[in-house]
Amino acid sequence: MPTLMILNGPNLNLLGEREPEIYGYDTLDDIRKKCEARAKGWGLEIDFRQSNFEGDLIESVHAARKTCAGIIINPAGYTFTSVALVDSLKTFTGPILELHLSNIHKREPMYHNSLVSKVATAVVAGLGAAGYELAVDALAIKLGQSRVQS
Amino acid sequence: MPTLMILNGPNLNLLGEREPEIYGYDTLDDIRKKCEARAKGWGLEIDFRQSNFEGDLIESVHAARKTCAGIIINPAGYTFTSVALVDSLKTFTGPILELHLSNIHKREPMYHNSLVSKVATAVVAGLGAAGYELAVDALAIKLGQSRVQS
Amino acid sequence: MPTLMILNGPNLNLLGEREPEIYGYDTLDDIRKKCEARAKGWGLEIDFRQSNFEGDLIESVHAARKTCAGIIINPAGYTFTSVALVDSLKTFTGPILELHLSNIHKREPMYHNSLVSKVATAVVAGLGAAGYELAVDALAIKLGQSRVQS
Amino acid sequence: MPTLMILNGPNLNLLGEREPEIYGYDTLDDIRKKCEARAKGWGLEIDFRQSNFEGDLIESVHAARKTCAGIIINPAGYTFTSVALVDSLKTFTGPILELHLSNIHKREPMYHNSLVSKVATAVVAGLGAAGYELAVDALAIKLGQSRVQS
Amino acid sequence: MPTLMILNGPNLNLLGEREPEIYGYDTLDDIRKKCEARAKGWGLEIDFRQSNFEGDLIESVHAARKTCAGIIINPAGYTFTSVALVDSLKTFTGPILELHLSNIHKREPMYHNSLVSKVATAVVAGLGAAGYELAVDALAIKLGQSRVQS
Amino acid sequence: MPTLMILNGPNLNLLGEREPEIYGYDTLDDIRKKCEARAKGWGLEIDFRQSNFEGDLIESVHAARKTCAGIIINPAGYTFTSVALVDSLKTFTGPILELHLSNIHKREPMYHNSLVSKVATAVVAGLGAAGYELAVDALAIKLGQSRVQS
Amino acid sequence: MPTLMILNGPNLNLLGEREPEIYGYDTLDDIRKKCEARAKGWGLEIDFRQSNFEGDLIESVHAARKTCAGIIINPAGYTFTSVALVDSLKTFTGPILELHLSNIHKREPMYHNSLVSKVATAVVAGLGAAGYELAVDALAIKLGQSRVQS
Amino acid sequence: MPTLMILNGPNLNLLGEREPEIYGYDTLDDIRKKCEARAKGWGLEIDFRQSNFEGDLIESVHAARKTCAGIIINPAGYTFTSVALVDSLKTFTGPILELHLSNIHKREPMYHNSLVSKVATAVVAGLGAAGYELAVDALAIKLGQSRVQS
Amino acid sequence: MPTLMILNGPNLNLLGEREPEIYGYDTLDDIRKKCEARAKGWGLEIDFRQSNFEGDLIESVHAARKTCAGIIINPAGYTFTSVALVDSLKTFTGPILELHLSNIHKREPMYHNSLVSKVATAVVAGLGAAGYELAVDALAIKLGQSRVQS
Amino acid sequence: MPTLMILNGPNLNLLGEREPEIYGYDTLDDIRKKCEARAKGWGLEIDFRQSNFEGDLIESVHAARKTCAGIIINPAGYTFTSVALVDSLKTFTGPILELHLSNIHKREPMYHNSLVSKVATAVVAGLGAAGYELAVDALAIKLGQSRVQS
Amino acid sequence: MPTLMILNGPNLNLLGEREPEIYGYDTLDDIRKKCEARAKGWGLEIDFRQSNFEGDLIESVHAARKTCAGIIINPAGYTFTSVALVDSLKTFTGPILELHLSNIHKREPMYHNSLVSKVATAVVAGLGAAGYELAVDALAIKLGQSRVQS
Amino acid sequence: MPTLMILNGPNLNLLGEREPEIYGYDTLDDIRKKCEARAKGWGLEIDFRQSNFEGDLIESVHAARKTCAGIIINPAGYTFTSVALVDSLKTFTGPILELHLSNIHKREPMYHNSLVSKVATAVVAGLGAAGYELAVDALAIKLGQSRVQS
Repeated sequence: MPTLMILNGPNLNLLGEREPEIYGYDTLDDIRKKCEARAKGWGLEIDFRQSNFEGDLIESVHAARKTCAGIIINPAGYTFTSVALVDSLKTFTGPILELHLSNIHKREPMYHNSLVSKVATAVVAGLGAAGYELAVDALAIKLGQSRVQS
Repeated sequence: MPTLMILNGPNLNLLGEREPEIYGYDTLDDIRKKCEARAKGWGLEIDFRQSNFEGDLIESVHAARKTCAGIIINPAGYTFTSVALVDSLKTFTGPILELHLSNIHKREPMYHNSLVSKVATAVVAGLGAAGYELAVDALAIKLGQSRVQS
Repeated sequence: MPTLMILNGPNLNLLGEREPEIYGYDTLDDIRKKCEARAKGWGLEIDFRQSNFEGDLIESVHAARKTCAGIIINPAGYTFTSVALVDSLKTFTGPILELHLSNIHKREPMYHNSLVSKVATAVVAGLGAAGYELAVDALAIKLGQSRVQS
Repeated sequence: MPTLMILNGPNLNLLGEREPEIYGYDTLDDIRKKCEARAKGWGLEIDFRQSNFEGDLIESVHAARKTCAGIIINPAGYTFTSVALVDSLKTFTGPILELHLSNIHKREPMYHNSLVSKVATAVVAGLGAAGYELAVDALAIKLGQSRVQS
Repeated sequence: MPTLMILNGPNLNLLGEREPEIYGYDTLDDIRKKCEARAKGWGLEIDFRQSNFEGDLIESVHAARKTCAGIIINPAGYTFTSVALVDSLKTFTGPILELHLSNIHKREPMYHNSLVSKVATAVVAGLGAAGYELAVDALAIKLGQSRVQS
Repeated sequence: MPTLMILNGPNLNLLGEREPEIYGYDTLDDIRKKCEARAKGWGLEIDFRQSNFEGDLIESVHAARKTCAGIIINPAGYTFTSVALVDSLKTFTGPILELHLSNIHKREPMYHNSLVSKVATAVVAGLGAAGYELAVDALAIKLGQSRVQS
Repeated sequence: MPTLMILNGPNLNLLGEREPEIYGYDTLDDIRKKCEARAKGWGLEIDFRQSNFEGDLIESVHAARKTCAGIIINPAGYTFTSVALVDSLKTFTGPILELHLSNIHKREPMYHNSLVSKVATAVVAGLGAAGYELAVDALAIKLGQSRVQS
Repeated sequence: MPTLMILNGPNLNLLGEREPEIYGYDTLDDIRKKCEARAKGWGLEIDFRQSNFEGDLIESVHAARKTCAGIIINPAGYTFTSVALVDSLKTFTGPILELHLSNIHKREPMYHNSLVSKVATAVVAGLGAAGYELAVDALAIKLGQSRVQS
Repeated sequence: MPTLMILNGPNLNLLGEREPEIYGYDTLDDIRKKCEARAKGWGLEIDFRQSNFEGDLIESVHAARKTCAGIIINPAGYTFTSVALVDSLKTFTGPILELHLSNIHKREPMYHNSLVSKVATAVVAGLGAAGYELAVDALAIKLGQSRVQS
Repeated sequence: MPTLMILNGPNLNLLGEREPEIYGYDTLDDIRKKCEARAKGWGLEIDFRQSNFEGDLIESVHAARKTCAGIIINPAGYTFTSVALVDSLKTFTGPILELHLSNIHKREPMYHNSLVSKVATAVVAGLGAAGYELAVDALAIKLGQSRVQS
Repeated sequence: MPTLMILNGPNLNLLGEREPEIYGYDTLDDIRKKCEARAKGWGLEIDFRQSNFEGDLIESVHAARKTCAGIIINPAGYTFTSVALVDSLKTFTGPILELHLSNIHKREPMYHNSLVSKVATAVVAGLGAAGYELAVDALAIKLGQSRVQS
Repeated sequence: MPTLMILNGPNLNLLGEREPEIYGYDTLDDIRKKCEARAKGWGLEIDFRQSNFEGDLIESVHAARKTCAGIIINPAGYTFTSVALVDSLKTFTGPILELHLSNIHKREPMYHNSLVSKVATAVVAGLGAAGYELAVDALAIKLGQSRVQS
């Protein structure tokens, strides 16, 4: 069964706990469960990870090269600063979907220039936690999966 | 039954005809039909439009103020240059999803600075024609619709 | 009797209807009537127009070349993007007053660089609907009219 | 009787004397008299000042905080360089009208970026000496005065 | 007989009428006739158009995709601002010659950055109305036509 | 007893050892002891940390959310590059004091644009090791502590 | 007894009177008294000044060259614009502490680039009126004073 | 018989030899012959030169001041860097046509900002070797020559 | 006897006293005497002034309009920041020589962009105190004076 | 025997495995062996490391301060973003050679501005794996080693 | 007898011949004679040169290293573009005076950024041909010469 | 026997003579001899050249097209300014190694943007005269030479 890596960057471990009225009441673990359910409907498995370390994210991408068909990455703060993460993503040959909870283009200038967008296949931003499930759908379609159930 | 406006900007009337190996074999009319089917599953109607005129797009947004619950807009070339279109979108109080067939951030610099992103609720780019259907799903969820069928 | 053209750009047809607590309760038609009354006091006629199309505004400027002594233009969103409109104004030999309801310099950067200001005789911004009547006064004085009544 | 401060910045004491074919034959004193007459028609008094010193202008704004209902300021050369003057204007709670004899946007780049515009309620530029009288009208309307006479 | 589209942008309908001592006494219709004569000498037909609307120019390019072997375009004010027009020209597979009456590089900064040049095959600027006839020669040569007469 | 976190970024473990004639002969451990003594005088405890890893600093900020009343952070090289660290600080609701041993504004351009300053309550730079003790005083005052002893 | 000059720039005479809920209820005179008390504890005298005139501030720095061991300067609006003030500070050989009530780096861009920071020994920003007393402590330490009392 | 100088800059001596499938199989000498033939048809002579030295090109322009009615210059690499060449062209009072084999605006940024365009009468780019003959036609027309033969 | 104004900006009153090994041992008064002697040799008088106030310098320029044939101005720190001083110099119709003791172009970026150079007739920088005497010579020649003695 | 540290940044663990036709078939371990052999010929030892973590690289530089005579560093993606790594290198007093497999200046803009170059003694780029051996030679010469064997 | 090199850059051989009403009727040879006379009065010899070739100017500077006490250089167009000329001037240890006939700062932007100013001792601009003689005086004083005659 | 061209730009003829404590005591001729010896060990010949003229360097590159297998170029001052030299290098099909004695990235901004790097195969900077010999090694390896002797 093909696997999708869902990779979450720094501070996303605080989801559900921090300003829930803005970011929603779902924790990252809730999101993981929803993604797994959604993926199952497409005959896909999920390898769901979070780290606050740039090096960890890079090594997860290296792992994905051997085990995953696609990557959904919410690089959070490293989106705008990590050339090293971009370099690791360049070594991945499957589709890469860059995901953001908020529409980053409406935020302060420090959040405007995504480096990851230069290597991502697609970008989804501003859909909150629901964006994760739609991202699973999107990659499943890109990978030519057909729905097992819905 | 709530209505979504799907607004297509300049040159999108050529879809299916121009470089189909890149942009796909679906015409804009094929996409319209798929969106209508998808919307039906959420209990939504679609008002699907295309124009090569900035003024037409603005007046469609004005129309949407009275008749639509949300807007999906693929502003094409006007994405980067139309302050007037941005101003019209600011008058719309429902959710706005900005859609691009390609990941614009990987293209030439002329396509990097979306003005529409400053007022959109969400952005989806790089998913090709499949992005339209996912955009319908996304707005349906934002509007709190539940699936009638799937 | 000399005529002033008062030219209104995109989205101004929504005046009075959109965020009236900010932009005021006057519709564009109310403003037209007030301008006509004000102009009459200076022995002037008004040719009052609005369009959401850049091409229409350009053609109105062409019309003004033959029929009008001065132009008051609120170019709205085209203020910042239309070189073509600027080119048409360069062909007009009478005085041109650029008008904005709000003080554009206090808004987001996208509204800071008026191209029209490079060819306008004068600029009035931030006086709301009252700015229209003062603009009529200002052009009447520029054109050397004397008050018929007040 | 409410008072308007009319504050004139550096070099404006030369009005009428310097290049009168461009700037007009009115001296600053002539303008003061016209403003007083105009204000009287609206039931307003004028506190008319000029200084070549940035510190004087700042202290006049401080004075206006206690005695004036509105400020008309032609900051001349300090328009583009005085953060300190801007800071003083931020402490004034009534309406502030920024006035320029010429349309500064048509001049050399050194005159393009008005700092004062960031805190002014309204901007009037390019109407020459006549701009002063229209500015009195504009502020009178903003302050809700009604015409005593005209 | 192969056809060339000659496409004229905003304000060019004023040719011959506006500042003729600068832009020449030829009207756009005079130029059309000269181009037709010149084209005839190369065994070519001309489809000569002018519009002040960006949308019209885009739709003319769409028409040219089906009927014309080459395009000569004087995009006037849209040269510098229309990404949408550039996008339409990208869909045209024949040669495109960008034409300007004046040498735009000697004008104000607003006229320096041609977007159309990024997709044009060739650029001719500064030859006035004579540039149109030379442009016909140039495209005829590009298309491998031989002179029928001269 | 309320706790202050004092967080030290990369290379600060070399303090006292590297160019002591410039940075002083105090090691980071000496500074920790002085801060603890100073804090005691205000009825405060200190949680003093150093790491060369961006991820560690982020996780220390997460820890501080649960255990500390305020943060003093000397982010060293991450000051200018870590959006992820800034994001973590945004989740902290108490006062944040950004501290630098040297006056960073006098150094090379790479050290001029502090990202952390955008979210810090206060900034203290250029006071060397003495800055740590003054920072403890400053946060104690901000937190409304009164001196137990001095 | 060594003296510190505490120099206050434009608009700081309004302290305590203007937006006290933000800037605090202390007037500049209250701050002077607190600084004198604090300085006494270190065996220091205070020469406390305020002016709205750039020239006055420069001449105070000249005075300090002869009479003071250190300078605490809150240059307010001149922070960002006065090369002349910077030049005067370069002639002062003792320590210079630049002080701001607010964290200027969080404000609008006009307040981001301090010229004074290029010549200051240290910078303290964002501590409100309490910053003055801490600045006295900081300079006392820099000057090697020992506490007389506390 | 009036003379045109045709001046070729650095590396153009390699024409015909370097990447002929791109730049064409014509050598610079072939082009010279074609230009002479074309010029003869307009009753003009050609002074055809090439140099890799900036100083030589400048001295050729000095020579043209005394002997030539117009200049066609393909400045190649000096187009973008030679203020000295621009200064020499400013001393020439006849028409100057700047010529490039390729459309420089489509190339890398280093080739985008032509300094020569600031002083050229006209610019022709992207027509390959054929551009030379059309440039002769264009200057002949500018100089008011009539065709001797064609 | 024609008069030259020699106007000295902020901090120049410290000449001779501040870093004499760099700026020389001449005080401003010594320089005044040398200038008077030099001027006498050309049949000229000197009106020599210094102020630390921008407003004073402006008013001195106003005075020069009535009494002086030329101005030598060392605007010091106001060189780079005073649009108001530039505006006053624009009202002076005689020659203006901008003088700097050091070569400002070799200093930090804050000293690179002279606003005064935009209106000065000539610029002399880097000659130290000797520059004053050469400036007197230069203006004397510009004014067509002949040497009385040398 | 003096030691060289050879420090490899993120993603370099993939060498030999990723696009070998471009980056070569040598793994990082192969390179280590070649460097050790080369170093032996100069009487030098090698401490060869790789990490994907910025913090690890910084701590390796700290280690090198105590044990190594020189550093060869291929900082990969951290080259362009790590001020913290630069700060650590500033504490190293021996020679530092910055190494890149490719010529970074020919790549996308994100790879153009090396921060590490500001503190490196020398830079070698574009020589592929062979660059490592030449770097050993270069540092050996810098350190004054003589060849033991070759 | 010490020698001054006076080095003239491209196009200066046209002096006296080109727009004499602007640049004066003096040829470069006339200027040479005046400089020689002036130098004689200071006990100095002149080595006066002109070239349109960057390489020649560089080699003249090399010659001056061996034979001259100072250099007066009018680099004309190379002022703004020749890093190589700047590098040669850095090898000269005597005083260097950069001379321009016009005030370059009042000209187009292409003439604003002098590279030579970064290495010149002094700059004189805008004094026309008279500037040469004053430059001789200035260098003579710098070199400590005393007047032989005047 | 294959030949390497070693091309040296402006001012390099001064090597050994100018600041030898910095640039070393080797003259360019010493370096030539060392390169010849080194090349011999790889079975290569050297064509070693220096010129201060941009045109000469270009013509040397043209010569290398016919006679050399690789180019080592130290373009000195032309590195940053010569598009023409870059164009000539683009016509060379063998490997090109750009060499600098110093690490240019640590120097003033004028030396930061190498144009030559955009076309070089490899870059070596900061190794002084020793860099030449290492460059010979590097190109020999690139060309697949094997050591004849060492």
